[in-house]
Amino acid sequence: MITAGRAVVRPAIPADNDAIWDILRPVYRAGETYCMPRDIDRDEALQDWFAHPFTAFVAELDGRVLGTSHVGANRPAGGSHVANASFATHADARGTGIARTLVTEAKVWARDQGFRAMQFNFVVSTNADAIHLWQKAGFDIVGRLPDAFLHPKHGPVDALVMFQTLKEEPHEL
Amino acid sequence: MITAGRAVVRPAIPADNDAIWDILRPVYRAGETYCMPRDIDRDEALQDWFAHPFTAFVAELDGRVLGTSHVGANRPAGGSHVANASFATHADARGTGIARTLVTEAKVWARDQGFRAMQFNFVVSTNADAIHLWQKAGFDIVGRLPDAFLHPKHGPVDALVMFQTLKEEPHEL
Repeated sequence: MITAGRAVVRPAIPADNDAIWDILRPVYRAGETYCMPRDIDRDEALQDWFAHPFTAFVAELDGRVLGTSHVGANRPAGGSHVANASFATHADARGTGIARTLVTEAKVWARDQGFRAMQFNFVVSTNADAIHLWQKAGFDIVGRLPDAFLHPKHGPVDALVMFQTLKEEPHEL
Repeated sequence: MITAGRAVVRPAIPADNDAIWDILRPVYRAGETYCMPRDIDRDEALQDWFAHPFTAFVAELDGRVLGTSHVGANRPAGGSHVANASFATHADARGTGIARTLVTEAKVWARDQGFRAMQFNFVVSTNADAIHLWQKAGFDIVGRLPDAFLHPKHGPVDALVMFQTLKEEPHEL
């Protein structure tokens, strides 16, 4: 039985690669939420997910990897105190709270690393469930990029910039 | 005599590298406008300026390179119809209109390449002259990132996201 709230987030290891690709592949193939070539192959996708300066994580539920995130500096030098993060979950993770847990843990990790804020640079405006989740997790919409994403079904749609200052105690969901 | 409005913008060639570095070096060393390590060396700076997917340009005035830009896709795939651009000018270019010419030509080039919009992801809010110039060139402030830049003199300051849809006829300055 899959139960909400029991997901454990830990740093990803090479043995997680298959599970991570199982999560990313349908997300990238759909092409509705990331600016990623829809035909990207496994190696390129994993290389990107683990690329410097990002640290990749997985969320396990009952021993099964059902979600992944990567978190790192959004910019170098004068902008390196702001983190960036991306998230993806398996279709089987719907309703398990894994996405929520990944966001919460990303904030905790980023704050522990010394980041003072977290920013999402490009949230496709039709990704309503994610936007709602991130707003509940304390992120504000601080920018709107008109028609900045070509959605495979909806055509040009806005993208949002979301931002959150990381307080000592992360916002509880 | 330096006269405004006579600058010519053309693609950069390897022989421009010294002049480009002369322009970029003081900008990066000051660290007030770009998220770039202030101690970046010449090779790294030039590599970044010419990095894929950007095309680098220089602005010449009476045969002297006094400004540079690079323009390219802001994101891949579903976001690749939006261009990004960066600009830098030599201290000797103040009042020559070179910055204005660089922006205008960047827009023309981007539109000719098929880009439908141009976005600046991270405009340091204390960079008032640049912001004013870009607003005059038709860019809107579409986002504000609170305290996202650590300014070497002013401490944490906001960064702005600026955006412009590229019409058939570029906005005249």
